[in-house]
Amino acid sequence: MRVGVVGVGCTKFGVHEKTIQELAFDAVKEALEDANLSKDDIDISVVGTSNTRGYELMPAVPINEYCGFAGKGPIRVEAACATGSAAFYTAYSSIISGMADIAIAIGVEKMTELNTPTSLAVGGRSGSYLWEFHQYGTTFPGYYAMHASAHMKKYGTTPEQLAMVAVKNHRNASKNPKAHFPKEITLEKAVSSRYVAYPLKLFDCCPISDGASAAILASDKKIKELGLEAVYVDGIGFSSDSANLTRREDYAGLKATAESAKMAYRKANIENPVKSLDVACLHDCFTIAEIMAYEDLGFCKKGEGGKFVEEGRSDFGGDLPVNTFGGLKAKGHPLGATGLAMIYEVVKQLREEAGELQVDLENYKALIHNIGGTGHFGWVFILGV
Amino acid sequence: MRVGVVGVGCTKFGVHEKTIQELAFDAVKEALEDANLSKDDIDISVVGTSNTRGYELMPAVPINEYCGFAGKGPIRVEAACATGSAAFYTAYSSIISGMADIAIAIGVEKMTELNTPTSLAVGGRSGSYLWEFHQYGTTFPGYYAMHASAHMKKYGTTPEQLAMVAVKNHRNASKNPKAHFPKEITLEKAVSSRYVAYPLKLFDCCPISDGASAAILASDKKIKELGLEAVYVDGIGFSSDSANLTRREDYAGLKATAESAKMAYRKANIENPVKSLDVACLHDCFTIAEIMAYEDLGFCKKGEGGKFVEEGRSDFGGDLPVNTFGGLKAKGHPLGATGLAMIYEVVKQLREEAGELQVDLENYKALIHNIGGTGHFGWVFILGV
Repeated sequence: MRVGVVGVGCTKFGVHEKTIQELAFDAVKEALEDANLSKDDIDISVVGTSNTRGYELMPAVPINEYCGFAGKGPIRVEAACATGSAAFYTAYSSIISGMADIAIAIGVEKMTELNTPTSLAVGGRSGSYLWEFHQYGTTFPGYYAMHASAHMKKYGTTPEQLAMVAVKNHRNASKNPKAHFPKEITLEKAVSSRYVAYPLKLFDCCPISDGASAAILASDKKIKELGLEAVYVDGIGFSSDSANLTRREDYAGLKATAESAKMAYRKANIENPVKSLDVACLHDCFTIAEIMAYEDLGFCKKGEGGKFVEEGRSDFGGDLPVNTFGGLKAKGHPLGATGLAMIYEVVKQLREEAGELQVDLENYKALIHNIGGTGHFGWVFILGV
Repeated sequence: MRVGVVGVGCTKFGVHEKTIQELAFDAVKEALEDANLSKDDIDISVVGTSNTRGYELMPAVPINEYCGFAGKGPIRVEAACATGSAAFYTAYSSIISGMADIAIAIGVEKMTELNTPTSLAVGGRSGSYLWEFHQYGTTFPGYYAMHASAHMKKYGTTPEQLAMVAVKNHRNASKNPKAHFPKEITLEKAVSSRYVAYPLKLFDCCPISDGASAAILASDKKIKELGLEAVYVDGIGFSSDSANLTRREDYAGLKATAESAKMAYRKANIENPVKSLDVACLHDCFTIAEIMAYEDLGFCKKGEGGKFVEEGRSDFGGDLPVNTFGGLKAKGHPLGATGLAMIYEVVKQLREEAGELQVDLENYKALIHNIGGTGHFGWVFILGV
């Protein structure tokens, strides 16, 4: 059996006054209309929300009621910044296991609603709370700053190369009306911005965004029966790593990326990702994260990630366009929504509906890479038509 | 393909000083030893924890590291009081989808660690927070008190019949060393206890417990290959209902129970549950919940639940022994652990390892019923040998 994505929806990312129910509804409505299905067609709803420090402690129930899914099988999943991917995986396995014919994965997060702890602290808590956050006060930029320092020391990666990731992704976001920061920035502006956590500067960091996305998945049997248009899931890979960073072997990459890619490539029969893929969404919560991902996913050799962006190989017309919609860096990163926003983006690309941001399709294959924490969760999906 | 449970573990339920990692480890260790497997045999780990208002905001990562599962596919799930069942479902579908050969579902909760909100408020928040909890201050006993009032008015169910559920479950718990309250109570003590939320009295309510449980699931191929002993999953049913109770048609039962039972019975080919099953674990967070479940699961006619317990039909030697290990009422109810503690219990029964609490096995079939909130989530599992 194969499983296909038959409908996608995504709100604009940014600062929203709406409740999480209302945000989720906007994405669900767009996905149902996109699939030409009604709420009654859904068998199971998987809600991905990472934080429940706002007033909704158990958000799946009010979200499902508000979206019209009361009576359906509901479940909430969480995998830190990869929560949306965990929701996609759970919806996928619900179908392929025969427990459902049509499932919806909904990702939603109100990052700006968090007060205690703040969004920055939330990131710091996604690793080893007692050892790292409580003892040393490590915030999320602090974690990735350690990775950036290691990568710069080991491979000579430069602050300019880091900034080039931001410049590329902001340029792409400037053509995406759903992006939190739809505006271009110059290399000078990025490299001269203030430090957030050395060596990471303001423009090396993704914003704190609210938003929601949704994807509707169906079995191939149902796709044929209802005559739906689908983008298929060709391979899924998952992995994880130690909570405590002192137990990692290497800081210049994420083992969880490499391991989950290995699994996904094996399942999708991909030997050379740059040749086989047309477009990729990578987890660029910080610029260094995109550079490490190029390497860990095998787009280039270890240590050559800086050059990969510098030479335009991850830009339109390059070896493999990456984060054509602006990435987490400029489109935004509402934890629960991010993984499903990546699904939204590659589905638009593979259907040739990406407008100004459309890449040339040769193989009609795309990759999604979504990380929770600093490799605490790793997900890779290969989608194709 | 079939999926079997090949190992189970469960801590004593009660008040624990340990961290959630340590609690989870105790259950995981017992489950691995029970299955005669090592941590390296596990492909994916699903952690069920409902509340993250303690200091661990994203508990799957530190739990997985502490249990030796760093590098495995991790995911956290939540479905209020049915969180353990959602974890079991996700582990099950990971195997039957071919994404994993062996999966572990871990449920853990430190209810006594919660300060803001308190455990009582947590229950009240599992429904419609803004309308019911915030406006009317509905706590969890308050919700089930409304169901009890409706059942008593419509069917003449008596306070004594409610208390008989507690007396039976405490009697069973008195022989279970893992129970939070392993002691018998008299009917007089139960009916004369103080009101918590009219008509529910102290002994109509389950305690606030800490605890952890774990179940290891494997594909039948792996079970044969490794020569494991297994209890198989014959059917799974899930459903849900409106967040807002004013949108329910009836308060004298839970539609989510009836609907999830219907799905599970269909999959397991069960027409007459009382005849086909040997033992059942029902969700008795309050005594009225067990009485409504008898009816909604079809163990007796609607309105006859009070008589079902009064006539001893849910006791040892009756039509269908229910909550032989003491139930949520007397064994305890650490939200994330509860559903998997039910798996632990029925696996012990179906393997004839229940000691003093062993039921007579005729069909070697058991039922599990786990509810989140007041029917906000509904799960039914049929297990058999």
